[in-house]
Amino acid sequence: MTTINVKTTHSNQMIDITADVRKAIRDSDTSDGLCIVYTPHTTAAITINENADPDVVTDMIDGLNSLGFKNLSFRHMEGNSESHLKSSLIGCSEQVIIESGSPVLGTWQGIYFCEFDGPRTRKVFIKII
Amino acid sequence: MTTINVKTTHSNQMIDITADVRKAIRDSDTSDGLCIVYTPHTTAAITINENADPDVVTDMIDGLNSLGFKNLSFRHMEGNSESHLKSSLIGCSEQVIIESGSPVLGTWQGIYFCEFDGPRTRKVFIKII
Amino acid sequence: MTTINVKTTHSNQMIDITADVRKAIRDSDTSDGLCIVYTPHTTAAITINENADPDVVTDMIDGLNSLGFKNLSFRHMEGNSESHLKSSLIGCSEQVIIESGSPVLGTWQGIYFCEFDGPRTRKVFIKII
Repeated sequence: MTTINVKTTHSNQMIDITADVRKAIRDSDTSDGLCIVYTPHTTAAITINENADPDVVTDMIDGLNSLGFKNLSFRHMEGNSESHLKSSLIGCSEQVIIESGSPVLGTWQGIYFCEFDGPRTRKVFIKII
Repeated sequence: MTTINVKTTHSNQMIDITADVRKAIRDSDTSDGLCIVYTPHTTAAITINENADPDVVTDMIDGLNSLGFKNLSFRHMEGNSESHLKSSLIGCSEQVIIESGSPVLGTWQGIYFCEFDGPRTRKVFIKII
Repeated sequence: MTTINVKTTHSNQMIDITADVRKAIRDSDTSDGLCIVYTPHTTAAITINENADPDVVTDMIDGLNSLGFKNLSFRHMEGNSESHLKSSLIGCSEQVIIESGSPVLGTWQGIYFCEFDGPRTRKVFIKII
């Protein structure tokens, strides 16, 4: 298992970690299998989405904020229930198929770490099966 | 890895691909393991939900549309940020357990390809571990 | 594959099943691999989120309800399209990395069965790869 550290600079932010995943697969010398990308935090997530126009991830954060979770009167004293909700809606892991030593991604697909309660330093685990 | 093509006919549509997944598992001669169903597109998704009453998937599309992403003023010039959001909320892959050469699905569970920016011809990858 | 039964007591409820997952991994004598936690129901889900303050899961259910799916006029005669939507938004399975015979979870992460159409008795499948 490989651990990478991701330093976020905003409260909500999506950071492309595709290069780290590619490197972990290459370093494992696995030609064929499955790669799990997992974050062990409850106010963060992993998703796969467009890697070409950076406006897409900004729009995605705006879209999640538009759901209005921030305006609800929540019980949790830390005041970040909105962040926990976003984490479970997007999900804390993704899986990528490995063929010929590379992740099988679509032309426009990148793998993103999603920060929903930053800025913080976060961990991502990459496991090759 | 098996690749199947899915031809969608509407902008938003859920298509049952359970038979294709069953066939890929049967063809692989795997009695016990894991099956990954993955779509390499950033405005589509894979989900598992009710296969009995076709109204359910129509309702699910209506429900996703009711979130109001379409009315937001997004930056992405292609104008389909709503589709990208739906893709990450539902997720671009699912995993199914294989036992005795068959996917372990609940009585009412079917595996669906979700189109959020059609009509298009789309790909789905099926990988057996 | 291990099957566990979960008895829910409310229409919407999140129940911590981390101890069951730990036990299934321990019983399988697997030191290194992947654990799939899967529910075969179309109005339930599996998620990983905060295990410390029980208010978080209550807030998450309130947040999902705030999306307003209940007020939509759906076609499905059973009247539980809202439950199907929540199931696909959260997802019917999660995957956890296994290292040294234990699931690799963050300090605050617990694995939850999510009931969206209870009370019922539900099944969860745990598969070790």
